[in-house]
Amino acid sequence: MSDEIKGLNEECGLFGVWDDDHAADITYLGLHILQHRGQEGAGIVGLTDAGMVRHRGLGLLAEVFTKPQQLASLRGRAALGHVRYSTAGGRVLENIQPLLFRFTTTGDVALAHNGNLTNARSLRAQLEEGGAIFQSSSDTEVLMHLIRRSHQTTFVAQLKDALNQVHGGFAFMLLTEHGLYAASDPNGFRPLVVGTLPDGGTVICSETAALNAVGATFVQDVAPGGLVIVDQSGVRFDHYTTHTQLAVCSMEYIYFARPDSEIHGVNVHQARVRMGRRLAQEQPVAADIVCGVPNSSLSAAMGYAQESGIPYEMGLVKSQYVARTFIQPTQALRERSVRMKLSAIRPVVAGKRVVLVDDSLVRGTTARQIVKLLRDAGAKSIHLRISSPPLRFPCFYGIDIQSTHELMAANHSVAAMRTLLGVDSLAFLSVAGLEQSVNLTSTAPHHGLCVAYFTGEYPTPLDDYDATLRSELAQLYINVGEVSA
Amino acid sequence: MSDEIKGLNEECGLFGVWDDDHAADITYLGLHILQHRGQEGAGIVGLTDAGMVRHRGLGLLAEVFTKPQQLASLRGRAALGHVRYSTAGGRVLENIQPLLFRFTTTGDVALAHNGNLTNARSLRAQLEEGGAIFQSSSDTEVLMHLIRRSHQTTFVAQLKDALNQVHGGFAFMLLTEHGLYAASDPNGFRPLVVGTLPDGGTVICSETAALNAVGATFVQDVAPGGLVIVDQSGVRFDHYTTHTQLAVCSMEYIYFARPDSEIHGVNVHQARVRMGRRLAQEQPVAADIVCGVPNSSLSAAMGYAQESGIPYEMGLVKSQYVARTFIQPTQALRERSVRMKLSAIRPVVAGKRVVLVDDSLVRGTTARQIVKLLRDAGAKSIHLRISSPPLRFPCFYGIDIQSTHELMAANHSVAAMRTLLGVDSLAFLSVAGLEQSVNLTSTAPHHGLCVAYFTGEYPTPLDDYDATLRSELAQLYINVGEVSA
Amino acid sequence: MSDEIKGLNEECGLFGVWDDDHAADITYLGLHILQHRGQEGAGIVGLTDAGMVRHRGLGLLAEVFTKPQQLASLRGRAALGHVRYSTAGGRVLENIQPLLFRFTTTGDVALAHNGNLTNARSLRAQLEEGGAIFQSSSDTEVLMHLIRRSHQTTFVAQLKDALNQVHGGFAFMLLTEHGLYAASDPNGFRPLVVGTLPDGGTVICSETAALNAVGATFVQDVAPGGLVIVDQSGVRFDHYTTHTQLAVCSMEYIYFARPDSEIHGVNVHQARVRMGRRLAQEQPVAADIVCGVPNSSLSAAMGYAQESGIPYEMGLVKSQYVARTFIQPTQALRERSVRMKLSAIRPVVAGKRVVLVDDSLVRGTTARQIVKLLRDAGAKSIHLRISSPPLRFPCFYGIDIQSTHELMAANHSVAAMRTLLGVDSLAFLSVAGLEQSVNLTSTAPHHGLCVAYFTGEYPTPLDDYDATLRSELAQLYINVGEVSA
Amino acid sequence: MSDEIKGLNEECGLFGVWDDDHAADITYLGLHILQHRGQEGAGIVGLTDAGMVRHRGLGLLAEVFTKPQQLASLRGRAALGHVRYSTAGGRVLENIQPLLFRFTTTGDVALAHNGNLTNARSLRAQLEEGGAIFQSSSDTEVLMHLIRRSHQTTFVAQLKDALNQVHGGFAFMLLTEHGLYAASDPNGFRPLVVGTLPDGGTVICSETAALNAVGATFVQDVAPGGLVIVDQSGVRFDHYTTHTQLAVCSMEYIYFARPDSEIHGVNVHQARVRMGRRLAQEQPVAADIVCGVPNSSLSAAMGYAQESGIPYEMGLVKSQYVARTFIQPTQALRERSVRMKLSAIRPVVAGKRVVLVDDSLVRGTTARQIVKLLRDAGAKSIHLRISSPPLRFPCFYGIDIQSTHELMAANHSVAAMRTLLGVDSLAFLSVAGLEQSVNLTSTAPHHGLCVAYFTGEYPTPLDDYDATLRSELAQLYINVGEVSA
Repeated sequence: MSDEIKGLNEECGLFGVWDDDHAADITYLGLHILQHRGQEGAGIVGLTDAGMVRHRGLGLLAEVFTKPQQLASLRGRAALGHVRYSTAGGRVLENIQPLLFRFTTTGDVALAHNGNLTNARSLRAQLEEGGAIFQSSSDTEVLMHLIRRSHQTTFVAQLKDALNQVHGGFAFMLLTEHGLYAASDPNGFRPLVVGTLPDGGTVICSETAALNAVGATFVQDVAPGGLVIVDQSGVRFDHYTTHTQLAVCSMEYIYFARPDSEIHGVNVHQARVRMGRRLAQEQPVAADIVCGVPNSSLSAAMGYAQESGIPYEMGLVKSQYVARTFIQPTQALRERSVRMKLSAIRPVVAGKRVVLVDDSLVRGTTARQIVKLLRDAGAKSIHLRISSPPLRFPCFYGIDIQSTHELMAANHSVAAMRTLLGVDSLAFLSVAGLEQSVNLTSTAPHHGLCVAYFTGEYPTPLDDYDATLRSELAQLYINVGEVSA
Repeated sequence: MSDEIKGLNEECGLFGVWDDDHAADITYLGLHILQHRGQEGAGIVGLTDAGMVRHRGLGLLAEVFTKPQQLASLRGRAALGHVRYSTAGGRVLENIQPLLFRFTTTGDVALAHNGNLTNARSLRAQLEEGGAIFQSSSDTEVLMHLIRRSHQTTFVAQLKDALNQVHGGFAFMLLTEHGLYAASDPNGFRPLVVGTLPDGGTVICSETAALNAVGATFVQDVAPGGLVIVDQSGVRFDHYTTHTQLAVCSMEYIYFARPDSEIHGVNVHQARVRMGRRLAQEQPVAADIVCGVPNSSLSAAMGYAQESGIPYEMGLVKSQYVARTFIQPTQALRERSVRMKLSAIRPVVAGKRVVLVDDSLVRGTTARQIVKLLRDAGAKSIHLRISSPPLRFPCFYGIDIQSTHELMAANHSVAAMRTLLGVDSLAFLSVAGLEQSVNLTSTAPHHGLCVAYFTGEYPTPLDDYDATLRSELAQLYINVGEVSA
Repeated sequence: MSDEIKGLNEECGLFGVWDDDHAADITYLGLHILQHRGQEGAGIVGLTDAGMVRHRGLGLLAEVFTKPQQLASLRGRAALGHVRYSTAGGRVLENIQPLLFRFTTTGDVALAHNGNLTNARSLRAQLEEGGAIFQSSSDTEVLMHLIRRSHQTTFVAQLKDALNQVHGGFAFMLLTEHGLYAASDPNGFRPLVVGTLPDGGTVICSETAALNAVGATFVQDVAPGGLVIVDQSGVRFDHYTTHTQLAVCSMEYIYFARPDSEIHGVNVHQARVRMGRRLAQEQPVAADIVCGVPNSSLSAAMGYAQESGIPYEMGLVKSQYVARTFIQPTQALRERSVRMKLSAIRPVVAGKRVVLVDDSLVRGTTARQIVKLLRDAGAKSIHLRISSPPLRFPCFYGIDIQSTHELMAANHSVAAMRTLLGVDSLAFLSVAGLEQSVNLTSTAPHHGLCVAYFTGEYPTPLDDYDATLRSELAQLYINVGEVSA
Repeated sequence: MSDEIKGLNEECGLFGVWDDDHAADITYLGLHILQHRGQEGAGIVGLTDAGMVRHRGLGLLAEVFTKPQQLASLRGRAALGHVRYSTAGGRVLENIQPLLFRFTTTGDVALAHNGNLTNARSLRAQLEEGGAIFQSSSDTEVLMHLIRRSHQTTFVAQLKDALNQVHGGFAFMLLTEHGLYAASDPNGFRPLVVGTLPDGGTVICSETAALNAVGATFVQDVAPGGLVIVDQSGVRFDHYTTHTQLAVCSMEYIYFARPDSEIHGVNVHQARVRMGRRLAQEQPVAADIVCGVPNSSLSAAMGYAQESGIPYEMGLVKSQYVARTFIQPTQALRERSVRMKLSAIRPVVAGKRVVLVDDSLVRGTTARQIVKLLRDAGAKSIHLRISSPPLRFPCFYGIDIQSTHELMAANHSVAAMRTLLGVDSLAFLSVAGLEQSVNLTSTAPHHGLCVAYFTGEYPTPLDDYDATLRSELAQLYINVGEVSA
């Protein structure tokens, strides 16, 4: 289900180009393809003949870039772009990335980030005490101060020094007049890939789908702990640490990433089909049709249908033109808002036993409305199958599940949820099923996946968030003793 | 395929409410659901305590209504709304409907129209000679002048008088302080349906999907030649002529209408599934997978897969966030614009024999780019199957196919098209297959469908367009003698 | 005093060009110079190679024309522009002029108007009964319907026919593809002048200041009852009636027109200087300095100083940058709004006996605040001298004094006003003094001036407004018996 | 002459309030009155219950604050506002002040500046070397870094430490949650005054006119080297250095400041009147009328008229409504742009010998056009009298005369300028005349005025600008040997 409907949000998308005459245009196109990763703000810094020029704004890329000259002003042979969803840091222009730092002596630096740092708060306090002035309330800026205060003598050495001081989930990209730099955290939580343009230039971005769209050829994923350096001498795959252990965010496969992307060699659509197949094995049910919630659950629904032999049908339609934010009509009509975005095809579902496949269950509000929609269209029974395990724990690496008190599965047993959602049966994919469906070839725990939001097993210390988690868990166990029952 | 991609356009969507406290809000919601019928302008007239108030503008509904007070100012117990794509009349604010006429003596009248009048030009010339002043360049206004110049004494009688003078394809809706009025042309080219709101009020609108979305219950389609009168004494199903013959626009079923709508009793999604099934019977091919062009061709693709037994797969993905109009990058990158909107899932299509199902073929430009996209993703062979007959003739009843010189099938043989599109095979649904797939229970020619754009058989005289058609045909036969060969 | 401060408003400014390559640009510049005549809306129609194109909007000219292409789209060899303050007709886009009428058979007509018609309401009712449809709620449109329904056979004959049917105060301008037409009412209430451009083209506009600004040479005023026809055969000074009698609106000289304009041969600044001199003769007072309320009263203040021998001083300063509409701060601060626009120069006025010259007294609200401002700055005594007679009667010819209940002088004696305003003395210019100061060389009553708002002597029948005036007068005599005392 | 016409620009206006319920509203009103000091950007920081909130933007105050909620969001008991013209630092949002610094440990600081620092460049380079990151390209930010890196332990001590490190011309204001702070450079180049609000709160701002407008009572000017501290214990007049010497910018009196302001006890209007009187003594001429260029030269023109006995007349009128930036029409019409802003009253000047008084001569472009305007209106002879000495040297303390190559008087002799301007005679006020006209009661050189742009005598070392000046002077002496002749 699209985030428009569900309200579970990824933080950011990154896209940078080095050494191509159309760097800014390519970045603009690439960000369009990554728009699903962040809709609250967008920006591009172009390395032009007149130095670094930035255009950024609140809203979708198409709301930020409204005039050709806004793009034209960025043209040069390198560019760095960003689409943003804000977790840490308010929704103000100052926080829209790339951040741009002007150094009169050493040249400008543009910086963009996807992820969340677990020790940003304490690092910032230390830096401020040392006289540092921050221009934004976003965590990202910490990295720049660490670079500038490093006692190393080259930019790359300073950058490595800084990267070793920040913890958590991050994909960082930096642009200077000398090069484009990309780094991934030691667990590789967030995807980041390198590609080559037809004319020889280099693209680094969040997803392979964006490489394809701009005609670039995939080279490789940025490794955990890796630092990719692109400059006049070419592309170098370096690293800033060797203490690494793969733990890719499993929500990328389940829900966030585009189906046409591949992360660490696994195609997202196909991973979802396998989740659907596995779900059909783990949680079979007798039914007439299988429907997915458009659009992100369609792959898993197809998988469920293929494995179970139950026909795949288009029971729900998503409106293409309903604006992201539309004027909320009066209270009496507010409950109709899901019906603006989704509708049932009555003759398809009427009188049928329906397997409804959804990729995840967050607050349950939308699922309850979809179930009602199918009931109103005459569905005889509804069997909700979630192609991921129950979401029960906060994420501190860049996904907006920092508070668990609104997570349905963190507060209710499956039996209770079934009643609350009004379905005839409810079942989830197992954690093992998820891991085998994604099927990463890694010897790391959980086959190289991060499954912390399902199991509470965090791959790193939580630093500034330790106390937060402890209090979340305390409240969780008080409220929902029955969950583990 | 969505009109965003293809550029074949419907003219308008209508939505009116009588006797509900939330009339304007309901209309606003309803128009969202009808947004696919027109994206160039939108407007709502509300019958408020302070008389009729209008808000309208160029662009999508969400671009026109940007502040809650714009909607609030329209609140009252009746409203009439319109979304527009402009065929006749330029793209200027004056032409955005509903048109609103202020009469100091007899009260205001709002007027909205979906369709195209074949004798508007000659009627307008006559009226102007008689002293009439037109405020817009749209055909629609003609009706109002005919009403005002009628020698009948009641509004309904004047309206019937006027409706008998206009020819072509039309669904008209009018709102006065006394009632809401809806009329369909004698052939019922354009859909128009009546529903009842939970609190007893009445909705009349273009598609049943909009009824469902606002919680209204379907009552019946407006009959060809029918005039529906809704006022304080209730709903009356009247008519202004009995010389009628059903000829529903077949493009509504093929491409325009929402899959969750029902027109004259036929669900659009299911009709498309049947078109796909029939196409598989008429034009079978040995292949590994069936893919549809998202989103409008997915139903037909499912039908083709079901009938042929070839697996239905998600070979193409549509970007959800690429703006309707995005800044065109430099020439070198322009050819990428389809890749911004559609992409192939490489591991799904690589090495496969692909049946690509598209619902229609207009200029062929987009189809050619999609074919290239699949080739680049490694498709072994591509068999293009169009789930409608070849488009060869102009439409004069409200669809934007007024000029044939850009229609691929009007200018090339199937063999030539196959080469131009770069496909391994190409085939279309037959006209008979189309008629049987839609399966209207009508004894009118073509089972009550208008198939003029496929066959040139126009159900009405063409009036002002007679000469146009003759010259179109002359050029057609000169250019493409081989088409009929 | 500027209308920003006082709130007494003229209705409109007109500017048209025929036969110049820069017609639209010249019109745009000319309207800037006429902006004081109307700030609520602006529009220009250009006669381009692609027919008549219009750009119009609500607000100042600079708010309506924000992009060069808006002006560029209007370029051709003729243009008609308008700035508007709305008296009759609400403040909606539909009423912004020029009105533009599209006739498919006879070509487009643009129409602009300055003034007020006294029989518009009854004419419109008659026309609607005859089937006419109006596109705006403004009076102006009546003329177009009368033209189209005339039984004359040429456009000029139809126009003359129509002009003879409308009554009141009007300057009309029309643009067709064949010519530019300008007509003045039989009393010449509103100014309208003709000039010649350096390259031979013709300008017709409201004031000579606009001629000067665009480099045009003044030719002559449009005569009462005159019709000026400009077409390919040149400029003809025709007339539609010979029953004329000059009655120029005296408020043009007193307050509205620019000081650098000349109306019927009289320079406005110099007329104001003479009003100030005459006022000093009629109403002398012993004082230390003379100050005018900036900017429109400075001329009269200079005249008063010259005649009285009392030094002219800059006691008040007007803020140049305070926006026309600024955000109203909280109630407690609202009374400061005059201080945002005007301030006293303390050392100039402190301890001085001040003659404060203002050009007119409308509601008295602003005058009271200015008096307080001078008192706070230490003025010893304040002698308010108004360089026009007391405003007591409504205007029906185009100035926004249609209701008298807010006019201070219509409701209070001079003695009472002196107390209410808090001044040491108060005196007005006499009607005879006004007439002699303007000094028009006309044998018509009041030397060719309309002084109806001072004396109630209306130069024409009032038609639809007869009843209005009667009720105004009745209330006036009840409320303010003492005025005549 | 207004800066709209001349293009000589002040940098900024400051306005801060401490301890008033309407702090943000009062600041908003006050900035309106200071708008003449900067039209390129505006901003206000409000100290609200929710911390410091800022609203800022490019353009006039009225363009930046367009919705009541923008102002409402700033409401609290303290505020700091700024209007800006950019000299150093480009015209981008980042540079719009007040700058706002967020410190998670010690609380937010807002900072606003009027002036120019002569050692900003070298300080910034040193700071960057020490790891500092700047968020803007404006000089202002340097002060904040110096504060944060000070080894003092209290904010006031850190601030004094920092103020002693910056050189040049400055008026700084800072707002923290604990107080409002204002400092003036050791020469008092830029005006800064303290006032008391009716309810006991404190205002500090650039000009007394703004105090008057908001109803505040003047307390005293901020002394050179002074630091005013306003907090919960009241207002303290402290200082950060005692090495001071008054050198008020003489352009404030000549041209920039409002006529209703008083700077160090001298009313600006009256100083200008005295400049005009002195000019008449120094440079008399036989003539019929004296005219000033509206609006800033009117005071001096009055003085010239009073002293010479030649009648003061309104020969030129300034258009009130011509937008700051209007669409430039085609080249052929571009020369008319002065005529859009100024026009001559023909009957006033025709046949007359005119003394034209202007307050300063910058590039001479506008003066030449005004002379032509008067000639076209029939002036018999034109004697241009400039009420200030010739501008020949750059300013480094905050006025935009940093480059001399465009200054007419720096490149031409008076005789040459007379010819270039097309006047019958040309003369300037002497430096001594200027000093005596302003008449400050100071024993500092030049009676406490800075006259560097006239004489090249800079009151301070020029630091980073030393080399600039040397190269400017070298070029000057090469180009214009005749100037000293």
